[in-house]
Amino acid sequence: MLRVGYPATISAELFAAFPSEVELVPLPEKLDRETNIDVWIPDPSISHSLRIAPRLRGVRLVLSLMAGTEWIPGAVGPHVTICNARGAHNISTAEWTLTAILTMLKYVPFYLDVQRSGEWKRRFKATAHYERITGDSRPHYPAVMQEELTGKTVLLVGHGAIGNEIERMLVPFRVDMLRVARSARANPAVHAIGDLDNLLPLADIVVLILPSTSETRHLIAAHQLALMRQGALLVNAARGPIVDTDALADALNAGKIRAALDVTDPEPLPQGHPLWKCPNLFITPHIGGSTPQFAPRSIKTAEDELRRYLAGQPLENVVQAAI
Amino acid sequence: MLRVGYPATISAELFAAFPSEVELVPLPEKLDRETNIDVWIPDPSISHSLRIAPRLRGVRLVLSLMAGTEWIPGAVGPHVTICNARGAHNISTAEWTLTAILTMLKYVPFYLDVQRSGEWKRRFKATAHYERITGDSRPHYPAVMQEELTGKTVLLVGHGAIGNEIERMLVPFRVDMLRVARSARANPAVHAIGDLDNLLPLADIVVLILPSTSETRHLIAAHQLALMRQGALLVNAARGPIVDTDALADALNAGKIRAALDVTDPEPLPQGHPLWKCPNLFITPHIGGSTPQFAPRSIKTAEDELRRYLAGQPLENVVQAAI
Repeated sequence: MLRVGYPATISAELFAAFPSEVELVPLPEKLDRETNIDVWIPDPSISHSLRIAPRLRGVRLVLSLMAGTEWIPGAVGPHVTICNARGAHNISTAEWTLTAILTMLKYVPFYLDVQRSGEWKRRFKATAHYERITGDSRPHYPAVMQEELTGKTVLLVGHGAIGNEIERMLVPFRVDMLRVARSARANPAVHAIGDLDNLLPLADIVVLILPSTSETRHLIAAHQLALMRQGALLVNAARGPIVDTDALADALNAGKIRAALDVTDPEPLPQGHPLWKCPNLFITPHIGGSTPQFAPRSIKTAEDELRRYLAGQPLENVVQAAI
Repeated sequence: MLRVGYPATISAELFAAFPSEVELVPLPEKLDRETNIDVWIPDPSISHSLRIAPRLRGVRLVLSLMAGTEWIPGAVGPHVTICNARGAHNISTAEWTLTAILTMLKYVPFYLDVQRSGEWKRRFKATAHYERITGDSRPHYPAVMQEELTGKTVLLVGHGAIGNEIERMLVPFRVDMLRVARSARANPAVHAIGDLDNLLPLADIVVLILPSTSETRHLIAAHQLALMRQGALLVNAARGPIVDTDALADALNAGKIRAALDVTDPEPLPQGHPLWKCPNLFITPHIGGSTPQFAPRSIKTAEDELRRYLAGQPLENVVQAAI
């Protein structure tokens, strides 16, 4: 009987629909002895999973509940097939991205300060913020107190399943969409990553939603940040190392761009790190996927993949084929 | 020659496309003598406009740059035709509404506090907030750190042009939409206002986007707030008096609902008003329409109406017909 190890941190009820021909093996947070399983569903906490990985024996297939799986090959080696939960986090990550964009364009942090001050008239300070960050000093009356997303140019860097979902949520805002991915494709038009430097100066909003690999490390560095428009918004919904953190802090402190990050490098961002205090920045501590729907949706994705595995059908979400 | 008075606070350039057969009369902020005009475009600042209204003579037509015109009949009397800028504020107000919803469902105020504290681990406190406000205490792993808009039930109270635009922006989130307006209609299904109390218990999010009249005053009072679901979100993108402020403060302080308000009663909300300090509340100081696109869009709407007036065609945005 195929043994499927799953994190005991997750309620067993959520695995109740798994096929009856497998044996479900709950893996405690601290696994104190070697354990034989065929299929491993790692704990969504990477640190938990890295701790128990050395005790696991016999693993042939890893079914991750996450989209990003960059830590898994190092933990299980090259002879294991690794699948991610492609699709399960599209909605929550895309919703986070929309929230991050609107938070920055509508000056939500500023208005929370106004609310806390209890001074309605402080709203007029928004105009100076608008002029400073966008560089637009034409006369405006009535006073500008926030910006619109509608009609902006958005550059999606990465165009997988989550990128597609972000694009779907942007449709009502009639944005001009530019896309760049590893290789160029048509319908819709996606540019090759080599065109990134040519596209950056055209965008009001740059959204990073691509895997973290040695090739994408510091894809956004000082040179790329310098190419962005004055006041453009960089949104990182992917992984911290894709952006050069020092260069980002410099660009923010210079008032050149705005940013919203759900991921950082290093992560967790340590107390006292200079990024915490940069202006025109919204940081959330990697919460993009953490909604009440996370567990049921990603476990369903793993279940579907497991059923294909049992039936000898091709797997759909392979990110590493076993050697 | 038809004399069109416009606020001198607005750059004359924005009126450059007006028909050449009218005389444009800039009206200073403090008008010190009686002035004859045929058409009045009031300053978007209601207090400015109320101050100069008594000095105006001969006004037959008012072309407001705003959607809400409730102050105008009292200022100009019943013998004047009043038109609003229907359509000009759809986008900005609908974008504000989406921002307000996402700000509350994604705990943006909480995460700004986490960012300011510089303590990544404080994110885990989000779960207790989720459990408290929604009343959902089932075990959740991974920890719940924000909620999703996708799949929620949204009740739109009011279904005019801005309500339609809000609905359009909600489409990608696959919400279940309920609608209520003065009278019932089909395609899409809109319930009559008499059904409001039956619909309130079904909604996760209640959006107010209807005119302020004597009939809609305190439409949302203690009884209606009590009918809302535990943790439901009330969004007021319309006018403050539609909600009973004291009852709202009670419901917020009791932890019963959440709210996001761009308008309040009284407005401006005075310093020290208890509403400023209520929990689970996001207040913006009436900035929903104040984007850089406000002036050009609303002036274009007034220009189109003026051209119809000159051509003897029916006006499109009449909110008061002259007696």
